[in-house]
This record gives sequence, structure tokens and C-alpha cells, in this order.
Amino acid sequence: MSSDRLSTTFAALADPTRRAILARLASGVASVTELAEPFEMSLPAVSKHLKVLERAGLIARGRKAQSRPSRLQPGPLKNIAGWLDGYRRFWEEGFDRLNDYLRELQTKEKKNGRKK
Amino acid sequence: MSSDRLSTTFAALADPTRRAILARLASGVASVTELAEPFEMSLPAVSKHLKVLERAGLIARGRKAQSRPSRLQPGPLKNIAGWLDGYRRFWEEGFDRLNDYLRELQTKEKKNGRKK
Repeated sequence: MSSDRLSTTFAALADPTRRAILARLASGVASVTELAEPFEMSLPAVSKHLKVLERAGLIARGRKAQSRPSRLQPGPLKNIAGWLDGYRRFWEEGFDRLNDYLRELQTKEKKNGRKK
Repeated sequence: MSSDRLSTTFAALADPTRRAILARLASGVASVTELAEPFEMSLPAVSKHLKVLERAGLIARGRKAQSRPSRLQPGPLKNIAGWLDGYRRFWEEGFDRLNDYLRELQTKEKKNGRKK
């Protein structure tokens, strides 16, 4: 399901190390060893993060057992960007829209206040 | 920390119900009762989701104890969009870039294969 795919992607991105790994892969493919070095992490710890990213479709890995170089897969990021586009008007219209909301909110609260 | 803010936002968005609540709030403020109705959820269940969204700064809530109307706050979504922009070239350049990667990957694997 498309909705579950989005959840998996968001969950995979909810970790600073995994986002740092993606940032590293944005400049080219890298082996587990190459990825572990800058993060001062153990190979199993990096492998665990790579598995989460791979399951989310954010990276693909080569088949050779020893190096298994990872590369960035942009598909899920594109899906998130598509989802975000539905909300873009809120920050592009900026505070005008927010102020409208605030006014609406205050009116509602006054109404509720009167009911008591 | 900015990195932790991103993690909190991504974690809050990694749930289809919470994203559906945001979609509902995109068309205007709503009380807990109004939010619970279309989702056929209990008020405590909706309140739990609203707490996660509020902690992530994705919604703000009114102060009146009974209704506490929620409204969308676009700031964290804008931050995610900014983060995504760093990867936009990957899906906009599309498969050319992916093919370059694949080629690089295959070359690396051939090299590793020869070493054995």
C-alpha cells in the first residue's frame, strides 16, 4: 500500500545516522567499510542501518558478499516530496494563512466559552 | 538540535493516521471530536496522535480544555522540504544518474572480484 510505503520511508529517515549515510551516498556508491569509517561505527551497526534503508527502498546494494556497495535510490524521496507538495502552500503563503487560522481558532474558542 | 528536530518530524509522519489528521487540518482547524469522527477512532486514541503531532510542532492547539481545536503548523514540513531539496537532483536527473551509479557499482564489483 502506498500509505504504508510512506510510513516505512518516514520511519527510515527518522534517524540522524541513516540520514548521514544517505548524504554520504549522494556523492557516490560506498562499501560498508567506507560508510563505517567517518561515523566511527562498528560494521554490524552500519549494516543494521543499511538494512533499514534497503527495506525502505532508499538504497540498493551490490551482490558481492564482502563489499556489497550501497547506492542511493531516489524513488521514496520523490514520493515524500510529492506528499509534501500538498502542504507547500502553507509555508509559501506564510503567516497570512497562519493568522487566518489563529483568528478562526480564537472565534471558535470564544463561541465555546459563551456556551458554558 | 536541528538534526533531532528532523528525526522527531519524520517519526511523527511515519503513521498513516497522523498524516490523515494533518490532511484534515489542511482544510481548517478541528476539535478532537471533529477529528475522531471520520477516523472512527476513540477520543483517547486521537488525543494520543495529536500529542505526537504537537510535540513535533506539526500542529498547535487552543487552550480551552474541552475542545482544544488543532491547527496545522507548516514549519517542520518546510524543514523537511529543505532537507529533501538536497536530493532533488537525483530524481530530476532521473535514470541517467542511476545508470552512472550502476556502472560505477559494476566496475567496483569487477575489481573486487579480481582480487580474490
